[in-house]
Amino acid sequence: MNQTIIQEVRETTPLIHHLTNQVVMNFSANGLLSFGAAPVMAKAEEETAEMAANANGLLLNIGTLTSQELPAMINAGKTANERGIPVVLDPVGVAATPFRTNAVKRILSDVQPTIIKGNAGELAHLVEIPWETKGVESVGDGNADEIALKVAETYQSAAIVTGKTDVICIGSEVVHNHTGHPILGKITGAGCLLGSILTACLTTNKSIEQQALTAVQFYGLAAEYAAERPDVNGPGTFLSHFIDALAYDPAKLERE
Amino acid sequence: MNQTIIQEVRETTPLIHHLTNQVVMNFSANGLLSFGAAPVMAKAEEETAEMAANANGLLLNIGTLTSQELPAMINAGKTANERGIPVVLDPVGVAATPFRTNAVKRILSDVQPTIIKGNAGELAHLVEIPWETKGVESVGDGNADEIALKVAETYQSAAIVTGKTDVICIGSEVVHNHTGHPILGKITGAGCLLGSILTACLTTNKSIEQQALTAVQFYGLAAEYAAERPDVNGPGTFLSHFIDALAYDPAKLERE
Amino acid sequence: MNQTIIQEVRETTPLIHHLTNQVVMNFSANGLLSFGAAPVMAKAEEETAEMAANANGLLLNIGTLTSQELPAMINAGKTANERGIPVVLDPVGVAATPFRTNAVKRILSDVQPTIIKGNAGELAHLVEIPWETKGVESVGDGNADEIALKVAETYQSAAIVTGKTDVICIGSEVVHNHTGHPILGKITGAGCLLGSILTACLTTNKSIEQQALTAVQFYGLAAEYAAERPDVNGPGTFLSHFIDALAYDPAKLERE
Repeated sequence: MNQTIIQEVRETTPLIHHLTNQVVMNFSANGLLSFGAAPVMAKAEEETAEMAANANGLLLNIGTLTSQELPAMINAGKTANERGIPVVLDPVGVAATPFRTNAVKRILSDVQPTIIKGNAGELAHLVEIPWETKGVESVGDGNADEIALKVAETYQSAAIVTGKTDVICIGSEVVHNHTGHPILGKITGAGCLLGSILTACLTTNKSIEQQALTAVQFYGLAAEYAAERPDVNGPGTFLSHFIDALAYDPAKLERE
Repeated sequence: MNQTIIQEVRETTPLIHHLTNQVVMNFSANGLLSFGAAPVMAKAEEETAEMAANANGLLLNIGTLTSQELPAMINAGKTANERGIPVVLDPVGVAATPFRTNAVKRILSDVQPTIIKGNAGELAHLVEIPWETKGVESVGDGNADEIALKVAETYQSAAIVTGKTDVICIGSEVVHNHTGHPILGKITGAGCLLGSILTACLTTNKSIEQQALTAVQFYGLAAEYAAERPDVNGPGTFLSHFIDALAYDPAKLERE
Repeated sequence: MNQTIIQEVRETTPLIHHLTNQVVMNFSANGLLSFGAAPVMAKAEEETAEMAANANGLLLNIGTLTSQELPAMINAGKTANERGIPVVLDPVGVAATPFRTNAVKRILSDVQPTIIKGNAGELAHLVEIPWETKGVESVGDGNADEIALKVAETYQSAAIVTGKTDVICIGSEVVHNHTGHPILGKITGAGCLLGSILTACLTTNKSIEQQALTAVQFYGLAAEYAAERPDVNGPGTFLSHFIDALAYDPAKLERE
């Protein structure tokens, strides 16, 4: 982890434009604010291009996408590309229905993401590697490295396959992250908020390898720290402490 | 309460498709995950039929319904009926406006719910028994048994009238539940999340009487347990502990 | 602060119709319930006029407005005006895009707000005083009194400019409030929920000066109280205690 990336986020408070799902908007906003960046979630088709132009990073998450909202995403993504603003795409549940598959195809034909992140089932689907999914959850078991490499190659984007071990692929290079905690699987939006934190880290002046690794490592450490608080007895009490932990110094999280 | 129903939910992690209101999406998802099932909240008209077809249960809740969203609900409901997937209808605030009344009429003409649940004012309205409501809240006082029986008969569905005493009606049989805590009236979505928990219980291999009673009894016990934690001093701290408690064994909740 | 205003809210449980942004719906509903009022968030264009007619107060907040939702706001606002129901307008991020600027212009041409509240950047924009904004956040520094006075004069409405010091302007009279805590800047929707609490206070039988001052003073005191709880270690744990504190007596908050 490169702690200066987190320091830089906290000093610059980058504005992250979210076009994300309705389930996690509040959680993502609070988690990102605690981490040290600032969210904006404007979603009207008429304004997303301008909002993205004034933002420092853009997150596209299709969790509860409707066809009416797709143009707003594409407008924002195109503008971010033109301005050189980092774009993270989280193709939530892309394998679940043709509607999602087609929406992601349209996004990827018009927008160049900096990073595509998702669970193994989602990213496997993007490169036609067989995988089992259940709703929007990935339940299969296979070679996440292969998936990440193929996504990175196919879409000329960095790729992150989240899971017990996170796989980060930049070009042909693959690194792994082992921080994290199973309780993240018992709260909604754990992957979605990681997308927000990741986008914030991408706004700093460091290499994308370091930015991506720092985001996922820090996020996992914060979860580990929060899960171990003595007054955490389940996912409800975990949530409060996890949001707190996202504001802490990495050193504090690692020490305990 | 039949504890094997809760065990079965936790072993099978049923996928519950929600078409629910925007106020409670995050809370419902977290509560259901803690209980042991999995939420999916896809809402695009183009995909709700497929998503419902792949789910184990479907919850329809009209709390913030718009006319654009109604076809998505009906598509999901019809598919669930065809596949034999349980459907819970929560006609939130149905008496408040003609828009809601008509929306519920359209749903009920196209979709056969397994259970209709709501407060007394909502269910009274469905069977034209006079009742006083305020916004989407029921404030009247009357014969909930009569309402439940008439809903069950009219719509050939089970009926649950929630309140200080919950009334569960299957056919011509009525049972009552007395678990619960007044603090549930101070948080938003208490009734909505009960709909999610109930749908999860309906996916198990037990009688609907046992499934419905187990869901409402367990839910009330979890509220009682959480409300009595020493560090709960209001609805905010209650929320965290309530979500925790939904993950516990019924025996733990009853003992304390 | 006039404590009888808060008592009156808790005795009458006014119904506050919200047309607010999707990020804060859950938080606003829970905060308002804890305070002692009742939220309703119906948003279908077909029903907002009727819902507003049956409510005791109306809050319009444009945080995630879409063009489809604007008529629903205007219908509700017109009805509230006809019925003499108080209306609070929170023009979130109005300076950020022409879409927002035009939406607020349309609202203000059709609806007479009782109070317009927002941060300095938002209210400065409404009266064409230069100000720096970042996304939907105000980051400038200038004469908030002047802004409040000009908004009040221009729109014939009371005005509240929120910030480290809150400025409340009724006609040509200006009062200041100094309660509050910096941690409110680290949670999403702090300003939005204040709008809800304010609308609830406006439903009481007191002068608007006392209602507005009571709302902002009490809100700030609740934040101070919650921030000082020994088990608050960041914005996540703060949130739970803040919602709790909104239910307390002002005397309890002041004493500690």
